[in-house]
Amino acid sequence: MSDDCGHRHSHTEAMLGVEDALERILSYFEPLEAVDVPVAEAGGMVLAEDAVSDMDIPPLDNSAMDGYAVRSESVAGASAGAPATLRVIDRVAAGQLPTTAVGPGTAVRIMTGAPVPPGADAVVPFEDTDEVERVREGRSLDEVCVAAAAGPGTNVRGAGRDIRRGQTVLRRGTPIGPAQVGVLASLGRPTARVHRRPVVAILSTGDEIVEPGSPLPDGSIYDSNGAAVAAAVAEAGGVPRPMGTAPDDMAAVSAKIDEGLDADMLVTSAGVSKGDFDVIKDVLARRGEMQFWSVRMRPAKPLAFGLLAAGDGSGRTVPHLGLPGNPVSALVAFDHFGRPAIAKMLGRPPAPRPTIRAVLGDPIRNTDGRRVYARVVVSRRGGTYHASLTGDQSSNLLTSMSSANGLAICPEDARERLAGEEVDVVMLRWPPDVF
Amino acid sequence: MSDDCGHRHSHTEAMLGVEDALERILSYFEPLEAVDVPVAEAGGMVLAEDAVSDMDIPPLDNSAMDGYAVRSESVAGASAGAPATLRVIDRVAAGQLPTTAVGPGTAVRIMTGAPVPPGADAVVPFEDTDEVERVREGRSLDEVCVAAAAGPGTNVRGAGRDIRRGQTVLRRGTPIGPAQVGVLASLGRPTARVHRRPVVAILSTGDEIVEPGSPLPDGSIYDSNGAAVAAAVAEAGGVPRPMGTAPDDMAAVSAKIDEGLDADMLVTSAGVSKGDFDVIKDVLARRGEMQFWSVRMRPAKPLAFGLLAAGDGSGRTVPHLGLPGNPVSALVAFDHFGRPAIAKMLGRPPAPRPTIRAVLGDPIRNTDGRRVYARVVVSRRGGTYHASLTGDQSSNLLTSMSSANGLAICPEDARERLAGEEVDVVMLRWPPDVF
Repeated sequence: MSDDCGHRHSHTEAMLGVEDALERILSYFEPLEAVDVPVAEAGGMVLAEDAVSDMDIPPLDNSAMDGYAVRSESVAGASAGAPATLRVIDRVAAGQLPTTAVGPGTAVRIMTGAPVPPGADAVVPFEDTDEVERVREGRSLDEVCVAAAAGPGTNVRGAGRDIRRGQTVLRRGTPIGPAQVGVLASLGRPTARVHRRPVVAILSTGDEIVEPGSPLPDGSIYDSNGAAVAAAVAEAGGVPRPMGTAPDDMAAVSAKIDEGLDADMLVTSAGVSKGDFDVIKDVLARRGEMQFWSVRMRPAKPLAFGLLAAGDGSGRTVPHLGLPGNPVSALVAFDHFGRPAIAKMLGRPPAPRPTIRAVLGDPIRNTDGRRVYARVVVSRRGGTYHASLTGDQSSNLLTSMSSANGLAICPEDARERLAGEEVDVVMLRWPPDVF
Repeated sequence: MSDDCGHRHSHTEAMLGVEDALERILSYFEPLEAVDVPVAEAGGMVLAEDAVSDMDIPPLDNSAMDGYAVRSESVAGASAGAPATLRVIDRVAAGQLPTTAVGPGTAVRIMTGAPVPPGADAVVPFEDTDEVERVREGRSLDEVCVAAAAGPGTNVRGAGRDIRRGQTVLRRGTPIGPAQVGVLASLGRPTARVHRRPVVAILSTGDEIVEPGSPLPDGSIYDSNGAAVAAAVAEAGGVPRPMGTAPDDMAAVSAKIDEGLDADMLVTSAGVSKGDFDVIKDVLARRGEMQFWSVRMRPAKPLAFGLLAAGDGSGRTVPHLGLPGNPVSALVAFDHFGRPAIAKMLGRPPAPRPTIRAVLGDPIRNTDGRRVYARVVVSRRGGTYHASLTGDQSSNLLTSMSSANGLAICPEDARERLAGEEVDVVMLRWPPDVF
């Protein structure tokens, strides 16, 4: 694309590698402040403090079986031929606190999870006793015969066996899923201390775009970037704040930017290419410290990034990511640069997406020394992954993106990757039928 | 575990394979009714109807470059040595509708995305013209010299090239991500028709459990299943409705069940093992058509499933999944049986989690012919996945689950899997550092 306005502006312009651009962008982000959320709602967030237990779990020695709590010496040498007869002096269920101590020759009937009574050091399961027989025959349950020995500790879950008082159970930075939620709840915590979710303001610019649901004048198109980026923000764990569209008009764009300045990040689309109208660039350059980059990738070469100053004189700044306007470019750029920024704000490592090796079904050509991300469908045949292009790779064809599950890479320094070659594929989704 | 009460009850009891249990459970679920949600919020849901376009996208032929719209015959044979001089008769930007027709020897200045004016069939990019030079030298822009030929269609994106009017763009059943949201928005849709998210009521039962945040009496433990299952429901795309805890008391459990009966599924934990108190089983059996199963798996052997009747005489029934009480068993059982049920209600294939092959670092023993799901940490060394046990595999030790990223399988019919053997591992998470 030619630069019909480059001579009138002095924006910072540089050709940047993908990793360099990401590194520069991430340097502007930190994990957001910690907040307390209900523990059941902490899934998908990241622990902002070490979780240290202030108790043993289980809190008391308890039974792993339904049976009888005994002293192991009372049943030493017991067998089917020579059972030990014990006097049943109490019963204890889960949630009850046993009060009767077990002495030599006595037993307490106990249910799984119930605390082991004082004096007892083993639990004999029902099947090693004659309880069922006694019930069937209507005999007294004041006694029970034990037909097997049980050494000290048998079927007893020791206090603190899962977690000890003072133990750091989950470290700061741990991603929280159902099991971690369970661990925090088991410590008695009604809330979890996590990094707050970032609020991401989203604005689409351009005279030609119209919000979905409105009538479409001739010559206009519906804005798809606003909704697509909002969905990508939510998928990444952020809170999207859609701000609709603004025409290429200084006052309109500036007013929208003001609306978004209390967000944790502002994402715009369009207005960042060299050939674009100057108004967006002017607004951005005037409002903050903006850089306009050419990133060595296809799609998504043009990118803007910088800090916008809040209009309230507070000195506060908001990171602004300016995506290209073409729908595929916008999504690929957001995935590469916006998603990791959200991850970092959430306290997660801003790791790239998982990458696999797959055999290409179609060639990928590289015409200008940029890293090519080709939209592909990955499938598995035998033990091998195969990747087929989803058709025309123009960056304005969103259907090529919607049918893809991965992006196959032709590196910056390669002229092409041929059909049959094995390449890296960045996986956008993990379809269970593929893996 | 012995059955101290089996002779007093006639509940349906059967030893079931894992897949059989899942198939029976899924037969009770269907995709929920379709609802319209704002298109930007449809991510993670599933399209409930074919999306058919009622227009071409792009709607009109438009320019792929910033440059000059021309008739290709006007620049036939043009070169740097013999440029074609054209009269510039108008300009058109994106969002504008061109009104001036391009005739022989004329050109219209055009920006990327702007509709191609009538008469023109090609766009010459700025860099193939002398525009920049003219501007620099202060010469008239009423004319422009074109230094290269452009055949018909050059740099013109044809109307309908991405999507044609009448085309089914996305099929019913398509999972919606950012790209699909973008496609729907580009069709002008403010909403997407998707299957409603299921509401899942969650209840933990037991005399010994106390809700996190409350004081803990001696002999009690905090309920972790309620929060953990709620997080798992949310992760699966459902809407959790936590109902807290109920003691092993007929009236209390029955009242809680009433609260949950307008949900799409009721999930309880505890009260389903053979050795458990009868009250839960009695309530469930009385309220509906409940089955108590022993599933051939470890952990999570005991499981209840059935339909509970709504108390309002409406004849409505609610599927009820009764999980075991041990925290690991509850999560593994929910993952195997609850998660696919939610997927099916969302309109998604209730596919199992992705499975990989990994080399075991520790042996897994199978003592009683059940399929063993051992909690493991999967890592990658070289091109090979390795799986190490996360320690003590008792089903009450939640920490063993929270440190795992997968479940390594020892099949029902195998006595063991040795260290060094390759086994199937069900992946609970996809850590980017592993894949």
